Amino acid sequence: MDVDPAKTAVVLIEYQNDFTTDGGALHDAVKGVMDDSKMLANSRRMADEARKAGATVIHAPITFAPGYGELGNHDKVYGILKGVIDSTAFVKGTWGAEICDEMAPAESDIVVEGKRGLDTFATTNLDFILRSREIETVMLGGFLTNCCVESTMRSAYEKGYDVITLTDCTAATSAEEQQAATSQDYPMFSQPMTSDEALGMLKGSGEVVDASRAYSG
Amino acid sequence: MDVDPAKTAVVLIEYQNDFTTDGGALHDAVKGVMDDSKMLANSRRMADEARKAGATVIHAPITFAPGYGELGNHDKVYGILKGVIDSTAFVKGTWGAEICDEMAPAESDIVVEGKRGLDTFATTNLDFILRSREIETVMLGGFLTNCCVESTMRSAYEKGYDVITLTDCTAATSAEEQQAATSQDYPMFSQPMTSDEALGMLKGSGEVVDASRAYSG
Amino acid sequence: MDVDPAKTAVVLIEYQNDFTTDGGALHDAVKGVMDDSKMLANSRRMADEARKAGATVIHAPITFAPGYGELGNHDKVYGILKGVIDSTAFVKGTWGAEICDEMAPAESDIVVEGKRGLDTFATTNLDFILRSREIETVMLGGFLTNCCVESTMRSAYEKGYDVITLTDCTAATSAEEQQAATSQDYPMFSQPMTSDEALGMLKGSGEVVDASRAYSG
Amino acid sequence: MDVDPAKTAVVLIEYQNDFTTDGGALHDAVKGVMDDSKMLANSRRMADEARKAGATVIHAPITFAPGYGELGNHDKVYGILKGVIDSTAFVKGTWGAEICDEMAPAESDIVVEGKRGLDTFATTNLDFILRSREIETVMLGGFLTNCCVESTMRSAYEKGYDVITLTDCTAATSAEEQQAATSQDYPMFSQPMTSDEALGMLKGSGEVVDASRAYSG
Repeated sequence: MDVDPAKTAVVLIEYQNDFTTDGGALHDAVKGVMDDSKMLANSRRMADEARKAGATVIHAPITFAPGYGELGNHDKVYGILKGVIDSTAFVKGTWGAEICDEMAPAESDIVVEGKRGLDTFATTNLDFILRSREIETVMLGGFLTNCCVESTMRSAYEKGYDVITLTDCTAATSAEEQQAATSQDYPMFSQPMTSDEALGMLKGSGEVVDASRAYSG
Repeated sequence: MDVDPAKTAVVLIEYQNDFTTDGGALHDAVKGVMDDSKMLANSRRMADEARKAGATVIHAPITFAPGYGELGNHDKVYGILKGVIDSTAFVKGTWGAEICDEMAPAESDIVVEGKRGLDTFATTNLDFILRSREIETVMLGGFLTNCCVESTMRSAYEKGYDVITLTDCTAATSAEEQQAATSQDYPMFSQPMTSDEALGMLKGSGEVVDASRAYSG
Repeated sequence: MDVDPAKTAVVLIEYQNDFTTDGGALHDAVKGVMDDSKMLANSRRMADEARKAGATVIHAPITFAPGYGELGNHDKVYGILKGVIDSTAFVKGTWGAEICDEMAPAESDIVVEGKRGLDTFATTNLDFILRSREIETVMLGGFLTNCCVESTMRSAYEKGYDVITLTDCTAATSAEEQQAATSQDYPMFSQPMTSDEALGMLKGSGEVVDASRAYSG
Repeated sequence: MDVDPAKTAVVLIEYQNDFTTDGGALHDAVKGVMDDSKMLANSRRMADEARKAGATVIHAPITFAPGYGELGNHDKVYGILKGVIDSTAFVKGTWGAEICDEMAPAESDIVVEGKRGLDTFATTNLDFILRSREIETVMLGGFLTNCCVESTMRSAYEKGYDVITLTDCTAATSAEEQQAATSQDYPMFSQPMTSDEALGMLKGSGEVVDASRAYSG
């Protein structure tokens, strides 16, 4: 997998205060994994260096109107979106929904709008923007390792992108989930690697062991 | 086709000053058809009455960052999106990109974000919101009759919605295009009707002639 | 728009006996336009020459199970799919659903399966195959000019492909529809041209006038 | 979550000899988990009883042309699709690609065509058929628990279906993956349950504990 910075986008998923920052509605749930891997510092460095290397940096925050009216009859909502409603996270106009200071978009970055579901491709213009800019490689980081990042990874692979998952730029609600997602699922739909390895590839000195896995593996 | 207001959404496409209002970048191109059918007054009444009847009203404006960076290398852009760039229309933060006063969203309305392409379904969370709210019927109006409204109609039909096109709430850049789209293409993918007829259906007194057409027709 | 045969696919939509051949369920409806432009001979030549030039040739037939069970409750079907049911066209296993002899797939061609709707992208693996093969340019021909070919054109443009519509390889149910679609809608979402012009581009001697059109046009 | 058999589809993913049967290219990889849960017998019973209850049964096999030409340049293929190529599985026309005898489609079943990718929605007409038939609930079983079944589950949730995952009708390549997927990921995007519980719901005596999980969980 060759990486051309001009054809690469780093897609940063849900670096919003409700996840990233003390006092955020869901911060306590992910704090453990975040601290273990220093994912926020890694992500910040990744974004900074990727911009310098000439890659496109894209932010994909998730937001809902006050009251979560987009989700219809709340009695029928189940699964992770019920969790979002119950946590009162990601409400447009609140501090919790803002992208955190550490990951504030630079002027040249793109912020995709409209994310309501989990797979970033499903409810935003991400694919349109990637195609328009002739992006071939996407590098993914953010929250949660096995929820939005994984759904986005699966769709990116399905759509024919070269997908790199930045394992030390992701966080889940437990070490077990972090481990299971990155070791079992990520290799089927991406090349999982650390941000250091990814930056090496962006800068041309990359040397990455093929982590892909056969069904039988 | 039965219409239940609780399962109906009126989707209003690109009622932005650049189309609707004197001085808008593309207003002169559509002014003729708009005046002929009084589409703006019809659309306003449609939205007002639909809200009263209990339907969901959804706005789908199109916007671009200053410089149209989302569209990548402009030398490679062709077709209608090249037309948008050349016209300098729909730039976020400008008056031209704002929804016009006549069609200002009510508090209970939903504004879908992220529209960059022509088909509203392709680059927004429209489908997600419609599904979440258990919408079965969509009523479409806006600009251009044979561009964004038609692309959205085609996808809505493909996705299994009952589609009603509000012929006197649409406008194209010429009477010929208005006529060709509404008489030749719309019946294949929708029930085309006037806003009066659609309001009749929403209010329960609807009586509509089947306008669908066989291939051989 | 540069054209590299290795990155080009000619997508041939519904060249099935029900459309193309005497005795086909819908042949009489399109025979007039087919004869006017000799679209079948043009399409055959286009496919043959495109293969020789190294392009991928893809066939997209539409089929339904006997009884059209995929379409659910027929009382609720409207628009063009109702037309299909009423015409009894495209039933799997019948002569009418077979690709016609003139356009029989070569061994190196790809036949996409599963087409039930109008937009070829919506119900088949077309996008997956195009992405996997790194196709950048799609050239479209087939039936109907303003129905399946147009829906496929609109989605291909939305997905970022360079789209060429082969105007003399398409047919509609009337000269008016043929004219309206190719002159009014096609330039917004494609470069419309004759098969001769497209073959010129595939063979490297292409010189094409920009047919794109501004909103204000 | 109420279940109406007339609005329910059981979607059976890749019950093909290459997975299910001694001698199949990938059977050894999944045999352990299959035997542990008796997933094939459970799936057979599920399909039989679901038909009797009036639900739609849909089969989603994956196939490739001999030589896997749909996947383009094989040097660039990575991840799970590289695993498929290397295993020589699922080649159209071979015994390995056939649906196994135990799960042979009944005449009233629907077989979706065109599956090439992992998410069944991405490359087939599954969504079109579900919408046309007014299906609201999908029940998922098949291979692999954390690959195609999971990708299909994630998209079904995103598209607004009520999703039930039939945990004892799925198999992965290890007990660890089976456990991680069904306990960590499935509850975010579905109601995971056994086939017995799902049949209880289909038959109207269902009583299911809410397995949904908050982000903070």
